[in-house]
Amino acid sequence: MTTVLKLGGSVVTQKDTPETVDDAALDRAAAAVADSGLAGGDGAGDRDGAGGLVVVHGGGSFGHHHAAQRGVTSTDGTREAGDVVAIHGAMGRLNAAVVERLGAHGVPAVPVRPLSAASRDADGALALAAGAVETMLGEGFCPVLHGDVVAHADAGVTVASGDDVVAALARSLAVDRVGLCSTVPGVLDADGTVIPRVDRFEAVADAVGGSDATDVTGGMAGKVRTLLELGVPAHVFGPDDIPAFLAGGAPGTLVAGDPTDGTGE
Amino acid sequence: MTTVLKLGGSVVTQKDTPETVDDAALDRAAAAVADSGLAGGDGAGDRDGAGGLVVVHGGGSFGHHHAAQRGVTSTDGTREAGDVVAIHGAMGRLNAAVVERLGAHGVPAVPVRPLSAASRDADGALALAAGAVETMLGEGFCPVLHGDVVAHADAGVTVASGDDVVAALARSLAVDRVGLCSTVPGVLDADGTVIPRVDRFEAVADAVGGSDATDVTGGMAGKVRTLLELGVPAHVFGPDDIPAFLAGGAPGTLVAGDPTDGTGE
Repeated sequence: MTTVLKLGGSVVTQKDTPETVDDAALDRAAAAVADSGLAGGDGAGDRDGAGGLVVVHGGGSFGHHHAAQRGVTSTDGTREAGDVVAIHGAMGRLNAAVVERLGAHGVPAVPVRPLSAASRDADGALALAAGAVETMLGEGFCPVLHGDVVAHADAGVTVASGDDVVAALARSLAVDRVGLCSTVPGVLDADGTVIPRVDRFEAVADAVGGSDATDVTGGMAGKVRTLLELGVPAHVFGPDDIPAFLAGGAPGTLVAGDPTDGTGE
Repeated sequence: MTTVLKLGGSVVTQKDTPETVDDAALDRAAAAVADSGLAGGDGAGDRDGAGGLVVVHGGGSFGHHHAAQRGVTSTDGTREAGDVVAIHGAMGRLNAAVVERLGAHGVPAVPVRPLSAASRDADGALALAAGAVETMLGEGFCPVLHGDVVAHADAGVTVASGDDVVAALARSLAVDRVGLCSTVPGVLDADGTVIPRVDRFEAVADAVGGSDATDVTGGMAGKVRTLLELGVPAHVFGPDDIPAFLAGGAPGTLVAGDPTDGTGE
């Protein structure tokens, strides 16, 4: 049983202040991971040796700040090594803070940097080599990945968001459950109420901002599309629901696209 | 044409002082890489877009210090995440110094961390996923790898030396030439003279310390064995010969094992 928990950049950082961790929020998330027993820590006795927990965090005020300054997005790349070092370095500082805080709660967290393990082809498809992650899980560690810059054929280096990394992991690793924790409690309908389940994008298109490339809802449209294509049940929830998700519950919105019926696209 | 240049830990660090870069030696090496034009930099005009240069550096006084303190070797692992973070973190500081110095000379250097991309199976075989490295090379960057700790099936996390990383790269990437720069000018015979060419281990076993597991010659026996198995021409030379190697010459000792004749083992 392998679980992926994505902690949004807006959850673990103070998004408006460059390179500032939200210490209290990060500490609560780390404590919840430790308490779940999914990734070693205090409750590790019930791990069965197979699977475990992978944590992925977003960029928040670390990555976005440096990427925006340099005009680097998931499609507009840079060929300046200095840009790569600056953006990746900032994400490394946030990653070290997340690993450290998880470690302080007894979670055997170790860093995994997507720049080293992932790349995009000329069509923009992101491939993440998961051999290191898989071996870490087998040995009882909790790999901690993050949104990063990655080499991109014909484009230099582009941004791979935390959500992109989650999707790439789900393609290259046997993942059973995915949870995406952001600052909203789920996918919201037009009245601001959490939609319990989404099976097709069309059913929520109006509420999450339609299929326009311009994503005015803080990324929820893109997130739902990505999750529908995962082929793995994905839960979208807020910070208070991390314990419920890790305990096997279904807080927030369950996004459960069936990749075989074609409606996920 | 893809070239791998390994800079020994004893070349780029002051090996007896914990976590101390040998600034002058590192700067000379970085200048030689820039001058060669193989990896962008001032002479980049003659690059043909295919291939390029990969730099790998050893641990020197960064990695060895922390690994020895914790009893972690290439076969004796650790299951403590704190050990992993400490050893990997020290190597990250050295890697950042190497990337920074190369960048200062105009080399488009970007970091690649083996912990994120490599793992050992239960037989100890090291596999390094080279997709990121390959895409970086295609985009004109100079990936900089290093000796590191890697997840190891049934052993936790063990050390992968810089030489191990070079060998793994040569298995997963189309590498044309390998150069290993250490503090000695080549493989030496019993009189201390550089042997120009080694094709079989037996021919140099007496001089380099035989086939004993205890490696009393600073790693040269293990290095020669590893290089004979590469299937790629490998040159062993000292710091003064980096420019000659990068210019296509054959300074020091050429180790050219033929993997098909079985004598490399």
